[in-house]
Amino acid sequence: MEKWKRSARLTDMIRQLLFNPYRLIPLTVFAEKYKAAKSSISEDLDIIDEVLRSEGNGKLETVAGAAGGVRYIPGFGVEHARKVVQELCEKLSSPERILPGGFLYLSDLLGDPFFLNQIGRIFATVFQEQNIDAVLTVETKGIPIAYATAALLGVPVTIARYDYRVTEGSVVTVHTVSGSSRRLRQLSVSKRSLSEGARVLIIDDFMKAGGTVRGLMDLLNEFKAEVVGVGVMLEQPAENRLVDDYVSLAKVTEIDVKKRKVQVEVGNVFDDRKER
Amino acid sequence: MEKWKRSARLTDMIRQLLFNPYRLIPLTVFAEKYKAAKSSISEDLDIIDEVLRSEGNGKLETVAGAAGGVRYIPGFGVEHARKVVQELCEKLSSPERILPGGFLYLSDLLGDPFFLNQIGRIFATVFQEQNIDAVLTVETKGIPIAYATAALLGVPVTIARYDYRVTEGSVVTVHTVSGSSRRLRQLSVSKRSLSEGARVLIIDDFMKAGGTVRGLMDLLNEFKAEVVGVGVMLEQPAENRLVDDYVSLAKVTEIDVKKRKVQVEVGNVFDDRKER
Repeated sequence: MEKWKRSARLTDMIRQLLFNPYRLIPLTVFAEKYKAAKSSISEDLDIIDEVLRSEGNGKLETVAGAAGGVRYIPGFGVEHARKVVQELCEKLSSPERILPGGFLYLSDLLGDPFFLNQIGRIFATVFQEQNIDAVLTVETKGIPIAYATAALLGVPVTIARYDYRVTEGSVVTVHTVSGSSRRLRQLSVSKRSLSEGARVLIIDDFMKAGGTVRGLMDLLNEFKAEVVGVGVMLEQPAENRLVDDYVSLAKVTEIDVKKRKVQVEVGNVFDDRKER
Repeated sequence: MEKWKRSARLTDMIRQLLFNPYRLIPLTVFAEKYKAAKSSISEDLDIIDEVLRSEGNGKLETVAGAAGGVRYIPGFGVEHARKVVQELCEKLSSPERILPGGFLYLSDLLGDPFFLNQIGRIFATVFQEQNIDAVLTVETKGIPIAYATAALLGVPVTIARYDYRVTEGSVVTVHTVSGSSRRLRQLSVSKRSLSEGARVLIIDDFMKAGGTVRGLMDLLNEFKAEVVGVGVMLEQPAENRLVDDYVSLAKVTEIDVKKRKVQVEVGNVFDDRKER
């Protein structure tokens, strides 16, 4: 395409911005590609920013100076987020999800990329001021939510494994007590997958006593990395919880296997707290 | 936003289309939201389609009739895809990846959401004519690629597990021989996670003898589901391969632990074959 009409230019800019969350694109890149004045580019960016904000889909951030440019910060308006969480609670409250032992079937939700994108969008919004370097999760169910979140934060994912394989190379291992089974398990992370001092967000699908999250924290400690947040999709109240500071989207308040009843409420994600 | 200027309208339409691959949006939805004539909407869609195609980012598909509308079909121009695969081969050819036993370290690549999106885009393009209902993978390393692909095909992911837990509900289990370790293992999928007759794409990170993929095929057979494709990021030649028809992005042609040498070439993805 040699000559770019304004509408085509706008289309192409949005495409590039939305596909590359947090990636800084210098204005000169746009100006050169479309053979347009920087002032016209800036006007276009203002329009894109306005629409993204008004539709609750994040915003553009402009960085001034020679190394400057513009980048897309994904976000989720609080009303949109409330609707998604409300829907999540309703879906989780279905008695058909109750499994023997009082567990809940979640695999359908965790298999749906559209749903995951919305969950990831909420976590990415909640933790967007934390300058996150990486997202850490544990196999298996936490993985999809971790990737959905990391993609929108523009950072990599590290997966801790219970059964590490030779394909991880050298690993760091800690021991952890899984709250639900009280079983002592090993939890390992590949040595080259995290760097010292990294600011890490822990993401998992479910937390009860918090043994797994505590294990992940211990692992990060071994790496001298910093836990800057913990996000779980679903929490279930437990005595002696091992983790205090976390963000949950939903909370199981009652589960009765005999009566086939499960009650799920909104988690602490919308509670007032520092900065949020 | 009450009144929509053309540029704002365009921005908002692109946003909705790109965020919802394969989801059909009726033109009336756009016409009503922006209080615009359908003819103007159609003009905008033509521009968006033209830019997406020329930038190798897929296309718009218009479905005529009362139940019609427009949807975004993600895609990847073949030159873009070649560049990504070339880059993949170069990255994989680094001797630092060689692990004891002749394995390759892949976790850094499989942790990078931007890279995964590009890999998923290639698979989604290769298999886009197959009317896929679901993507099936196996824990742990296949999961990120499976999600990246499924997100761009607009379908759910099912994860087969070696160690299934109570949280899967009832499962279907088969036995499989892992080619590399010749170990007999169980492979299970939650009963409710796949429906009879589903058209399923199998995605994994690595294939040697193909024992795992063969196990996934056996599982699909139990569900009376249909395997419509197999995609692996990396293959390594093996005698007595258990799977014949697959698409690979890259191929390990030599790996020498002693000499610290690894050679990786482009896989069969760009080979001529039926329809492609």
